[in-house]
Amino acid sequence: MAELYLGIDGGGSRCRAVIGDSRGRIIGRGLGGPANPYHGVELAWSSVRDATYQALHAAGLPVRAMHSLRACFGLAGVNLPSVHAQTRSWRGQFAQLLVVGDLPIACLAAHGGDGAVIVVGTGSCGYANIDGEETLMGGHGFPAGDQASGAWLGLKAVEHTLLALDGFVAQGVLSESVREHFKANKAVELLEALQRAGGQRGYASLAPAVFDAARRGDANACRLIEAGAEYLAQLAERLLAGRSLRLSLIGGLAAPMHAWLPESLSARLSPPKEEAVHGALRLALQTWPAP
Amino acid sequence: MAELYLGIDGGGSRCRAVIGDSRGRIIGRGLGGPANPYHGVELAWSSVRDATYQALHAAGLPVRAMHSLRACFGLAGVNLPSVHAQTRSWRGQFAQLLVVGDLPIACLAAHGGDGAVIVVGTGSCGYANIDGEETLMGGHGFPAGDQASGAWLGLKAVEHTLLALDGFVAQGVLSESVREHFKANKAVELLEALQRAGGQRGYASLAPAVFDAARRGDANACRLIEAGAEYLAQLAERLLAGRSLRLSLIGGLAAPMHAWLPESLSARLSPPKEEAVHGALRLALQTWPAP
Repeated sequence: MAELYLGIDGGGSRCRAVIGDSRGRIIGRGLGGPANPYHGVELAWSSVRDATYQALHAAGLPVRAMHSLRACFGLAGVNLPSVHAQTRSWRGQFAQLLVVGDLPIACLAAHGGDGAVIVVGTGSCGYANIDGEETLMGGHGFPAGDQASGAWLGLKAVEHTLLALDGFVAQGVLSESVREHFKANKAVELLEALQRAGGQRGYASLAPAVFDAARRGDANACRLIEAGAEYLAQLAERLLAGRSLRLSLIGGLAAPMHAWLPESLSARLSPPKEEAVHGALRLALQTWPAP
Repeated sequence: MAELYLGIDGGGSRCRAVIGDSRGRIIGRGLGGPANPYHGVELAWSSVRDATYQALHAAGLPVRAMHSLRACFGLAGVNLPSVHAQTRSWRGQFAQLLVVGDLPIACLAAHGGDGAVIVVGTGSCGYANIDGEETLMGGHGFPAGDQASGAWLGLKAVEHTLLALDGFVAQGVLSESVREHFKANKAVELLEALQRAGGQRGYASLAPAVFDAARRGDANACRLIEAGAEYLAQLAERLLAGRSLRLSLIGGLAAPMHAWLPESLSARLSPPKEEAVHGALRLALQTWPAP
């Protein structure tokens, strides 16, 4: 059998898998659940495995072919050394395995080489790579970091909704949108729905409701999104530090956030060339070139 | 053997146990770890059991005597029906078991009857009881609710510290106190320390550092505590709604917060008569009176 390569892009909400041949041609794709090992190494592995099995199936390969794949995983959360160490037990499952952060692979995919990315999805973070020298900025995860992310917007929206339900602030479009999203009339119903939806992911699932409330003119929703957009502009400024790098805004909230960005940032953005998961496949091919 | 009663007071950081005889005389005390079943039913049970074993030991009773106790647990988190349901499996361990929230037992202990309490510790909440009619206000848990609590103060302090470490805001006494508390020079070290300290509990452990920074004049720390104190004043106003109830401020942050409260609230407070765990014992005695 010819050499086969696996690329994985895993974050707080889902993970993607692609299997490619030694020339980088895609022969199978798969999709799995949350794959940030900081929030559970077992869950992350289960999601990665699901996505890989799907991709193998799509490629017409048996499950056991997993053990012959040369794999590169780009996963959120593994920048913490203790979290990265916990992924070591996965190595035996593949012919080769390299585990890196989600940002290096996203940046490689966006630019094909040097460049910078700001990711805004379930979480948020800035990353630049010039000649292999990496700069990481922001991020730090839910609930204390990841400003402007879906989970951050959702957390602020839930804080506001709970205060509104208790009568500390006025009810409005934002609090109604949050309650509608979870079919919750009372605080206890909202909290139970968030628990069922899995914490950070549950909060992030509210992001569309926040953007929707803002489009309908809710001042609280607008204020939250504007604060997030302002943070992203500051993040870009500190990340680029005057350098003329190619910069992309990526992640699930890149599109809805675009209209809210200050001109200083939106004028500076270039579209990503490929999806992040292709960066993982590309890195696997670079690391273990076919003979 | 005469009838014996067990009272448990469990929250996000620890739980207390007292064993008393049929006349309410304390014969043993115990202390255990976190016991909020919303954050893990297994951990809560393990903490409750530890505290109970300690109290049995202090009373000179064997472990097997647990099964003959008439127990009342006051636990944070069980106001959520799905969480309360998960505590049902504990019933078989005792002769009788009543599981109620942490607030009814705290209020009963503070006043010996009708009254209102505001709890500010790892979490925060308001509760009033008049002739068995209960009013619950605020709370809602970490990270979206519990304004003014230790976990809330800690979360805001960590948010600030991460922004300072990234250079988005100036470093100061607050960010230095937070870093010193966890012996962390970099964001990654701070996040790993918080993960080890167990999320909400880790954040709450920062509360003394926030008060310390405020005493040393840090404007960010003062602003956080003032916002918390203002929230508590609003909570009291909405909770009492003009009624002349006895009101106590209780929990681990009641003492440090006192100096920061608006006069409208501090003038209104009465000291609690007993510790919360005695309210649980009292409720067990009321529920299953000795023959």
